Amino acid sequence: VDVRYVIGPAGSIDAQDRGLAYGDGLFETMSVCNGEIERLGLHLQRLYGGAARLSIPLPDLDELTLKITASAAGTRRGVLKLILTRGCGPRGYAVPAVVVPTIVLSATEVTARADREISVATLKTRLGENPALAGIKHLGRLEQVLGRLELSELGADEGLMLSSSGNVISGTSRNLFAVFRGSLVTPALGRAGVAGVMRRAIVDHCPTLGIPVDEADIVPGDLLKADEIFMTNALVGIQSVTQLDSHHFVSQSVANRLRQSLQLDRDD
Amino acid sequence: VDVRYVIGPAGSIDAQDRGLAYGDGLFETMSVCNGEIERLGLHLQRLYGGAARLSIPLPDLDELTLKITASAAGTRRGVLKLILTRGCGPRGYAVPAVVVPTIVLSATEVTARADREISVATLKTRLGENPALAGIKHLGRLEQVLGRLELSELGADEGLMLSSSGNVISGTSRNLFAVFRGSLVTPALGRAGVAGVMRRAIVDHCPTLGIPVDEADIVPGDLLKADEIFMTNALVGIQSVTQLDSHHFVSQSVANRLRQSLQLDRDD
Repeated sequence: VDVRYVIGPAGSIDAQDRGLAYGDGLFETMSVCNGEIERLGLHLQRLYGGAARLSIPLPDLDELTLKITASAAGTRRGVLKLILTRGCGPRGYAVPAVVVPTIVLSATEVTARADREISVATLKTRLGENPALAGIKHLGRLEQVLGRLELSELGADEGLMLSSSGNVISGTSRNLFAVFRGSLVTPALGRAGVAGVMRRAIVDHCPTLGIPVDEADIVPGDLLKADEIFMTNALVGIQSVTQLDSHHFVSQSVANRLRQSLQLDRDD
Repeated sequence: VDVRYVIGPAGSIDAQDRGLAYGDGLFETMSVCNGEIERLGLHLQRLYGGAARLSIPLPDLDELTLKITASAAGTRRGVLKLILTRGCGPRGYAVPAVVVPTIVLSATEVTARADREISVATLKTRLGENPALAGIKHLGRLEQVLGRLELSELGADEGLMLSSSGNVISGTSRNLFAVFRGSLVTPALGRAGVAGVMRRAIVDHCPTLGIPVDEADIVPGDLLKADEIFMTNALVGIQSVTQLDSHHFVSQSVANRLRQSLQLDRDD
């Protein structure tokens, strides 16, 4: 596979790129610590899975891994963002016969540390449902942008987004977990939402700790009966939700166990 | 409003542009004939309406009209594509405090004339429903790209796309009209779809011809009872559907009346 790589935050892309024209692509936002990417395997797994769903060609895993690790090498603590697009093509939705994908790699230092506790407000902005796009981190994220705009009026740290049919899906940029009598539940993402890498890491890790975990449909009323709620993403790790709208949560014990066991508490 | 204009098909945009990162923007695809843009007023109306929905600032109408008409001036017969984005910003969905929108204007000559008749196949790829995004021509068009990919296996000219709840919405890049006993119906677009400029022109024009027209929910079974079906967009004008899956349509009389009355038949 021929690829057009664009490296660094000052890079530019062709205005005819299908990533811009149609959101025809995917992205990954990866945490970097001392030049190393955290949970790179899970990011690559999601990226290759998404590219297969969209029929976007990717270079082989070894080549892309080298490019990614080289881009992160100079970053002490920060973020490496990868954007994959179907590249340039003539006008129109039809996919070109020969696709030369664009891969943008851009690393930035981040000094601020994520809070361990957040407040959450339920948003009116909903997430449309489409099984063909659910779970993958594609470039069409206007729902999240509108959710974030709505959130800026509400004064909470994160918004809770429901699907158009009323199920709890996620935050604007975080997945959600609820604890019911020691068991973890996270919303099923077969119709909407992004299957986060930290969400995956937690679901995979729970058996080691003997914590039952389930992916299931959740409605907003269910959350008020939860013993504990936390939200997650690859950059912030695990954040305990202390307030959801007017409802307060006290327990953070499952979040703390996971933070410790997944080594998310390092203060290097 | 400060604007970053990118003019011409060879332009490039910053890889940090939110149009690429999040599909955070809109576009218009306008037909150009002898250097003049057809139905420019309707395109601008949709663009400004969409920008208001997304809270993206735009320059005033006079400034933008000048830029657009200048970009089209050298094109004999073709397309002027406009892309509006929320410009660059730091990583994350949150909208920057100061937005400098990007406007890409790119004109291309097109020699091929659109067919007057097309065949249509119903697609499995569905359109998610979200009233916040329905109707506007935003940059997140992966559903249409996947629809077009599916269509390429089917051998028809255009695909029929249903919403996730099963209503008929549109083609991948065309709106749809059905004739029932002399009355026109086009799918309501309050939950999915793009409100096309040619669709608007037809709906606005029907009273002049004494043709009743309605925007309503349509299910696939309704279409089989139609006397006539046609599809529309700003570039192809009006195209009669002669075949939908295994069902054939003979009448083209309403399409012909509209083509003539809207002067879509010029052969200059």
